Amino acid sequence: MTNKLDLFFGAMADPTRRAVIEQLASGPATVSALHEPHAMALPTFMRHLKVLEKSGIVRSIKKGRVRTCHLAPTPLVEVQGWLAWQRTVWESRI
Amino acid sequence: MTNKLDLFFGAMADPTRRAVIEQLASGPATVSALHEPHAMALPTFMRHLKVLEKSGIVRSIKKGRVRTCHLAPTPLVEVQGWLAWQRTVWESRI
Repeated sequence: MTNKLDLFFGAMADPTRRAVIEQLASGPATVSALHEPHAMALPTFMRHLKVLEKSGIVRSIKKGRVRTCHLAPTPLVEVQGWLAWQRTVWESRI
Repeated sequence: MTNKLDLFFGAMADPTRRAVIEQLASGPATVSALHEPHAMALPTFMRHLKVLEKSGIVRSIKKGRVRTCHLAPTPLVEVQGWLAWQRTVWESRI
């Protein structure tokens, strides 16, 4: 469980990966479409996608030669719990 | 702004640092009290505290020889915004 939160927050701790999540929030997208806005080599970009997949935030399906990514249908339960807890703690402080 | 989110999520991506935040949620605590539950050398623990301070999540005040830590009065605005956005995206998917 601890490890899942580590992976989740670690995945979020990068602007490229957060941008991918923001893009996928509007719907599934191919790897090419996700890569396009980022000025980096494809292999570098693929490493970011791998981190997102490993964290459980993003899933992907390969159809022929095209890989399409989408946000996981639900966030990890542990993450939901932690974020809700944080919200409570911090909202009570504002 | 990007950098602040990087620091925030990077700080969260560790179980020791999350435990410190959970402990501070009940109120300020001395470095000794925060260190006590963790089976690690003090210098190692201090490095975790430094990461939390750098991220803006935790603040500390030294009085004599005792350093007391507390949660920052409000989370960073950028983080609030991002977490709220995530909540919207993900809650709409459940």
